[in-house]
Amino acid sequence: MLVVMEAHATAEQIATVCDEITAMGYTPHPMPGPTRTAIGITGNRGPIEQAARIQRLPGVAELIRVTVPYKLVSREFHEADSVVSVGGVPIGGSGVTVIAGPCTVESREQTLNVARAVQAAGATILRGGAFKPRTSPYAFQGLGEAGLKILAEARAVTGMPVVTEVMDVENLPLVLEYADMLQIGARNMQNYPLLRAVGRTERPVLLKRGFAATLQDLLLAAEYILNEGNSAVVLCERGIRTFDDTLRFTLDLGVVPMVKLLSHLPVIVDPSHASGRWEQVPPMARAAVAAGADGLIVEVHDNPAFAVCDGQQSLVPDRFAVMMEQVRRVAAALDRPLTA
Amino acid sequence: MLVVMEAHATAEQIATVCDEITAMGYTPHPMPGPTRTAIGITGNRGPIEQAARIQRLPGVAELIRVTVPYKLVSREFHEADSVVSVGGVPIGGSGVTVIAGPCTVESREQTLNVARAVQAAGATILRGGAFKPRTSPYAFQGLGEAGLKILAEARAVTGMPVVTEVMDVENLPLVLEYADMLQIGARNMQNYPLLRAVGRTERPVLLKRGFAATLQDLLLAAEYILNEGNSAVVLCERGIRTFDDTLRFTLDLGVVPMVKLLSHLPVIVDPSHASGRWEQVPPMARAAVAAGADGLIVEVHDNPAFAVCDGQQSLVPDRFAVMMEQVRRVAAALDRPLTA
Amino acid sequence: MLVVMEAHATAEQIATVCDEITAMGYTPHPMPGPTRTAIGITGNRGPIEQAARIQRLPGVAELIRVTVPYKLVSREFHEADSVVSVGGVPIGGSGVTVIAGPCTVESREQTLNVARAVQAAGATILRGGAFKPRTSPYAFQGLGEAGLKILAEARAVTGMPVVTEVMDVENLPLVLEYADMLQIGARNMQNYPLLRAVGRTERPVLLKRGFAATLQDLLLAAEYILNEGNSAVVLCERGIRTFDDTLRFTLDLGVVPMVKLLSHLPVIVDPSHASGRWEQVPPMARAAVAAGADGLIVEVHDNPAFAVCDGQQSLVPDRFAVMMEQVRRVAAALDRPLTA
Amino acid sequence: MLVVMEAHATAEQIATVCDEITAMGYTPHPMPGPTRTAIGITGNRGPIEQAARIQRLPGVAELIRVTVPYKLVSREFHEADSVVSVGGVPIGGSGVTVIAGPCTVESREQTLNVARAVQAAGATILRGGAFKPRTSPYAFQGLGEAGLKILAEARAVTGMPVVTEVMDVENLPLVLEYADMLQIGARNMQNYPLLRAVGRTERPVLLKRGFAATLQDLLLAAEYILNEGNSAVVLCERGIRTFDDTLRFTLDLGVVPMVKLLSHLPVIVDPSHASGRWEQVPPMARAAVAAGADGLIVEVHDNPAFAVCDGQQSLVPDRFAVMMEQVRRVAAALDRPLTA
Repeated sequence: MLVVMEAHATAEQIATVCDEITAMGYTPHPMPGPTRTAIGITGNRGPIEQAARIQRLPGVAELIRVTVPYKLVSREFHEADSVVSVGGVPIGGSGVTVIAGPCTVESREQTLNVARAVQAAGATILRGGAFKPRTSPYAFQGLGEAGLKILAEARAVTGMPVVTEVMDVENLPLVLEYADMLQIGARNMQNYPLLRAVGRTERPVLLKRGFAATLQDLLLAAEYILNEGNSAVVLCERGIRTFDDTLRFTLDLGVVPMVKLLSHLPVIVDPSHASGRWEQVPPMARAAVAAGADGLIVEVHDNPAFAVCDGQQSLVPDRFAVMMEQVRRVAAALDRPLTA
Repeated sequence: MLVVMEAHATAEQIATVCDEITAMGYTPHPMPGPTRTAIGITGNRGPIEQAARIQRLPGVAELIRVTVPYKLVSREFHEADSVVSVGGVPIGGSGVTVIAGPCTVESREQTLNVARAVQAAGATILRGGAFKPRTSPYAFQGLGEAGLKILAEARAVTGMPVVTEVMDVENLPLVLEYADMLQIGARNMQNYPLLRAVGRTERPVLLKRGFAATLQDLLLAAEYILNEGNSAVVLCERGIRTFDDTLRFTLDLGVVPMVKLLSHLPVIVDPSHASGRWEQVPPMARAAVAAGADGLIVEVHDNPAFAVCDGQQSLVPDRFAVMMEQVRRVAAALDRPLTA
Repeated sequence: MLVVMEAHATAEQIATVCDEITAMGYTPHPMPGPTRTAIGITGNRGPIEQAARIQRLPGVAELIRVTVPYKLVSREFHEADSVVSVGGVPIGGSGVTVIAGPCTVESREQTLNVARAVQAAGATILRGGAFKPRTSPYAFQGLGEAGLKILAEARAVTGMPVVTEVMDVENLPLVLEYADMLQIGARNMQNYPLLRAVGRTERPVLLKRGFAATLQDLLLAAEYILNEGNSAVVLCERGIRTFDDTLRFTLDLGVVPMVKLLSHLPVIVDPSHASGRWEQVPPMARAAVAAGADGLIVEVHDNPAFAVCDGQQSLVPDRFAVMMEQVRRVAAALDRPLTA
Repeated sequence: MLVVMEAHATAEQIATVCDEITAMGYTPHPMPGPTRTAIGITGNRGPIEQAARIQRLPGVAELIRVTVPYKLVSREFHEADSVVSVGGVPIGGSGVTVIAGPCTVESREQTLNVARAVQAAGATILRGGAFKPRTSPYAFQGLGEAGLKILAEARAVTGMPVVTEVMDVENLPLVLEYADMLQIGARNMQNYPLLRAVGRTERPVLLKRGFAATLQDLLLAAEYILNEGNSAVVLCERGIRTFDDTLRFTLDLGVVPMVKLLSHLPVIVDPSHASGRWEQVPPMARAAVAAGADGLIVEVHDNPAFAVCDGQQSLVPDRFAVMMEQVRRVAAALDRPLTA
């Protein structure tokens, strides 16, 4: 941490700050400059506790944190890329893995149809929501356990592992009976009891970025999971809230190479929720892979006009197959195969 | 809902859209204009379900929603201002109610000291966190039930009702044993299982705005609670995330008069979390009351330099007393008394 | 500036960075910590030039700037509050000054009517646009010089000095013939040739914050003006772009006390443009004064339904008079009189 | 436009609104619904003028605009993709065009070196700043005409046309003597006098999106230029301001397919300014092309550690050549060649 003193700070004020730093068990390093003095602090392991002891002293202008507050998720701690295995299908490493399926499990027939179609086009993990977080209490909230059973049947039929959202600690045991991968939705990214609970399981976790979360917030949310012992975490960019209302969210692909720089965890992209328009999904899916994403999660529906949820952003199977061909070619241009 | 057709949409496409609207059980109202046709839809009660049936038809440029998706929280549904009673202390109506106390319950002595001090300065409800949502897993997470017991003792000593955060459904029964008002934190504003659970109690709820939530999102979150039967909800603005990093969050006081326009629920403001600096708290507290807020929630600590959490934004009791005098004068200038 | 090294940086890499800092004419201060080394830099006057020389060295994780890049506008440079005189009317200091008038000068009659009305209600400076920056090329662009002449007549009749926008260097000489204060609009806040040109005059400048400008950007824009020799600058908060579309812009009142902390320049608030709704103007005007603003700039129109521009956010004179009474009472509650 | 009435609006209020619409020369279409009445307006060509005449009537809840306010730039007006020729090099159409060069023209040697290097790697247009808009008045502001002469020499030597920024109307004649394409920087995107001035030339214009501009704002800025007669406009996404401070700006690649949907103008992407880090440039350049961009504009410097400006985001020629090979492969995967 660096303490920046005010330009007019007195020698006595500077000495008091140094004394306080020493009293806290750290080492002060005063650096007098032509306009002001800064004081470096060393000797801390992790963030400085009780920084307000320093901040509130007379003559202190600002504290600047230097140490990043996460550890287990950082590339400095674990240098090699992590690969997460979801029912035998890898996410991370050399390949590009595509997860696809309906936004919501609506019926057995719909789910099986879509599962077969996305598998035929090259997807290797099935997605589908049984518990749905909806902004309005009057919107469809999901089939619950009946939906989970349908997902399990689709897995039995196709062999594809399934990822589905868990919304609360109460339903975690139930979801664990059926899911190969647990999705934490954007609205729950900072639901710490839930993060801790999935961290105490050994099931892979798909952690979606909250739509107002900085990359550091996302990495700290993952740190909660790893800190409980579960390191099988895949990060997912799905769009952030910005001033521009052209699309539902602004897909922030810049985080993909930044995750690669800062963390060893795999990162995938959800182009469906970000845009809210199916026409946007193929170009943004291609862009995500070109930026270096380890995979995609895409919504597909066999009859999106009648989807109970998010029909406007779902691809029909034919368009999904076209998109997959484009994605395969872009991945190949970067020497990355689609995970088979 | 209004369907906007593309400029080049054909008569046949327009007819198809009208037929689909009719098939959905609604009434279409085509309005041909010089550059394009728009089609109004009437006959719906609440939002149009399966809007994708229309959106995906050829020639459709855009759907525009007209109906607001909330009902129970709206002023149209309930015209008079609601007043929420917290252990006998009203929030809403003619007065301005001040909630104050430490960010976190750290010890019996600290809590009682602060409780007495804020009461002496005019606060009428005590705040204090026993369960703390923290961005980092390595930060202090609260005293838990021991903290709740300290709050209950502070209530017994001072007579002030207490508000404290509930973070998950598991701990709700425990928190209900001690709290007069349940706080839902910003990170849990869209934790729907938790919203439903507090909605099934009869305890007043302080619902903080998520830092990326629009006003409509906030009203819909409150709608979840009212829809379960609990209408004792107080909204709280506490700052949103914007591009400007001068302060921790940008306090959005414009929502105060907008809540008054759109909803009957009381709205208060948290100037402490928004800024992250204690010097900012008094001016923003005054501004909140001047904008028409029904109250404030303010962090006070008797020794903030040593606070385990948020010491940089906590007022010492003396400064809080000065602020209260300013707030009292601003409220009086608008003919609003401080709740006694 | 502080150089943060990577956790795995070698002793040799650290030495190379220190050598480079020395070669640049500064002094390095290495501070080894348990997880990483940071290196303070002193000896610089102002920001480090060619920081990329350091940034791009192997083992460097991050550069953190410590020195603020502005000087003339800072309170450290000039401790006392500045007061700007606009044709004899002060902005800054103990009083609260209200600027009011029509968004756009539409006609002699409208402007004189509004001028007399706002003066009767307590405004002391007249605003009115003759050159209007409009998002669409098809919107009304202002009366130009004819509008300036009407403003001059309104000044002659009422004695109120006038503030009007200058949009480009070409028209600056013309605007200087008529205006007592030059307004730089939000869209021109980073139009540096224009900032320099008004900086070379001696006329007071009203500098509106760009709607995506940080407070530091705003202070640096003011620095351009002061650096040319003109220190009669008044800053103006008028709303920023955020994700929330409830109102046109999000009024960021938190900058008011922050400007007071960081700068000696006066700061006023425009509640009309921020909200785009006249009902919002009185509560936000009150809030601005309660937060410590040195004044307001408010749009008033005698027949806003027929205004050529921004009629939805203009107050009629009667409502403006009511607002002024409220503002007077809030200002008095803080011991600040309205400037007479 | 659609007028949404309040739920409690009376029949008389509805009739008054319809009468006012008629009086304005338009046709009202009342649509009574179960909770509220909406009134469509037809008969207008372009946006409704004086909408406040309706907005301010009793019982009116909201006005919703339907017509987009731009015309000449829209795909509805001009269906085929426009191709802009810059000194014989096309932007738009089937190929992908790469513009590259130094951020700032620093010297003859530097500029010639970089020009030759980027040409060898496949760039076909040279960029370089002679007039630089800088946030701080103390930062280097460019070589001015001397820089333009160096660019002209680089063009003579390499045959590549040059694009350079014009910051004000005063210097437009000078820049026109040297530049093949005029760049309007992000900070000047809403400098309307400048937009009109370049619109009155026949020179191609590279219009960068302001960092708080919506896509509609950008299209309207382009409309200013086309409306003066110059339709050779290329749009450029270069990052927007959001709450996330991980990188300097958030590159919003979602606008690329949206521009393609809404407009016939070419759109390119600047991955250098968006991120502020050279490591980010290749992945984001690949992503931009994969999203469908018509080209890129990239900063290259032969000795970025010593660059006077933006050295941290400049690629060295060798890395630029590697990036170009990746971009070529991604473009080929989408059947688009690099412009030769």
